[in-house]
Amino acid sequence: MKLDKNMNILIVGLGLLGGSYAMSLKRQGFKVSAITRSQKSIDYALEHGIIDKGTTQIDPELIGQADIAVFALYPNVFKQWLIDNQKYFKPGCVITDVTGVKCCIVFEIQEFLRPDIEFIAAHPMAGKEVYGVENANDKMFSQANYIVVPTSKNTASAIELCRDLGKTLGFADVSELSPQMHDEMIAYLSQLTHCIAVSLMCCNDFRGLEHYTGDSFRDLTRIAKINDDMWSELFLLNREPLLLEMDKFRRSFDELYTKLKNGDREGMRDMMRTSTNRRQRFDKKEKNDK
Amino acid sequence: MKLDKNMNILIVGLGLLGGSYAMSLKRQGFKVSAITRSQKSIDYALEHGIIDKGTTQIDPELIGQADIAVFALYPNVFKQWLIDNQKYFKPGCVITDVTGVKCCIVFEIQEFLRPDIEFIAAHPMAGKEVYGVENANDKMFSQANYIVVPTSKNTASAIELCRDLGKTLGFADVSELSPQMHDEMIAYLSQLTHCIAVSLMCCNDFRGLEHYTGDSFRDLTRIAKINDDMWSELFLLNREPLLLEMDKFRRSFDELYTKLKNGDREGMRDMMRTSTNRRQRFDKKEKNDK
Repeated sequence: MKLDKNMNILIVGLGLLGGSYAMSLKRQGFKVSAITRSQKSIDYALEHGIIDKGTTQIDPELIGQADIAVFALYPNVFKQWLIDNQKYFKPGCVITDVTGVKCCIVFEIQEFLRPDIEFIAAHPMAGKEVYGVENANDKMFSQANYIVVPTSKNTASAIELCRDLGKTLGFADVSELSPQMHDEMIAYLSQLTHCIAVSLMCCNDFRGLEHYTGDSFRDLTRIAKINDDMWSELFLLNREPLLLEMDKFRRSFDELYTKLKNGDREGMRDMMRTSTNRRQRFDKKEKNDK
Repeated sequence: MKLDKNMNILIVGLGLLGGSYAMSLKRQGFKVSAITRSQKSIDYALEHGIIDKGTTQIDPELIGQADIAVFALYPNVFKQWLIDNQKYFKPGCVITDVTGVKCCIVFEIQEFLRPDIEFIAAHPMAGKEVYGVENANDKMFSQANYIVVPTSKNTASAIELCRDLGKTLGFADVSELSPQMHDEMIAYLSQLTHCIAVSLMCCNDFRGLEHYTGDSFRDLTRIAKINDDMWSELFLLNREPLLLEMDKFRRSFDELYTKLKNGDREGMRDMMRTSTNRRQRFDKKEKNDK
């Protein structure tokens, strides 16, 4: 199944990501509607031509028109929304999402979902330390990765549609992972980095710090401005994989600590060389992206 | 004492930083010479108008002409260079540096230095994951901090000259710290961040990682491409303060780990809010820089 401009796309949750999806799709000529909690967001999106129509209500007619529904909600809210409102979708509707954790939602949703609609999970690896549709920006996808997260229950056609959505949105790279692999990867690549940034900000409170800062500290702590409501939920929903990655990081950090303490310069250099070599891989990617 | 375009400025060590100093000063009309190990660097710098003259030799005449000498060498090489060659400086010459650690060199150098020349330490908080004069770029100072690190042995006049150098080079912020405070600060703001980035790269070796990466991981590991020769020396020269900061970080990281393990969502959110609040301070700075 391919995306087609006559399709009605419903965005549920018009925040930074939902808003950026809407902006991109609307610009490309799709019919985009939205359901979100705040009237302010709907008003803003209508005024700025980000959506065609929108409401803060559960509007059965609007839901029933959707060929594709994209959910950009917190995981638990997302699940509950579907339980309450899946009855309004028309048969054949394809549901996808932007949720940052997968095992805890995908299997359960696919279990309770009506058999005539399909949920294909996806994770756009894009985001920013700002919120809301007011900050929506469809340019932010162009250097970002998009991961489709199918299970054995998904049809080839829905997987293709979901990949096509990622490409249409302009993501630099579209790939596929199982929910388990996704959660393990995300625990390492995204959640662990947020744990580190938060811990780094919490461990010291020098005043006037900002006079002495170099780029490395700024880069490492950019994500330390964190949506505590969302991330604490994401951490807890992916607790086991994240604890495992935190363990691994701690072992590695402790190894460096011990080498420094023992004055083991060669040992430290070994770790630095490993780190340098592994980091090269990301460079190539960054170059191709541009 | 103010900088003056008739002054001869000698750069010792024409790498990324030394080269960027030379480029900036030469463009502004100062007479800039250089001594460095590699003839290739001298040739490049002469061809590109980064220096007026340069040599790979210890040239007593060139050294004797310097009103200001800036050392951009590894700490131990720097010390040895001065021991061997300080005899060639003319009386009144002011020496400064770019070294990333201070206690381990400043006091010792001020102890053995000829009484008629003065060493005033400085730390430009600029750098990149590339090396060599070929990558020199005087624009990189415009958003960076510059720290003058005086001791009780320094004269007000040399401190002023050193601050003036930082301003002339175009640094966004020029401040002062004692060597002890500097090393403590740097252990936290710079060395610890490098330890974290290296540990993060070393703790996992997923293949194909780059397909799934978001910006947070890229930002955190930019500095994981690290000059192992230089940084292992810097770490060892600042071992005690760095071990202390590593301890603090680990306690903070462990606290978050325990909270996650115990499902203590409010506790995690507390840490995230602290982190978010502290990180705001850096934002303002970033805005002012621009």
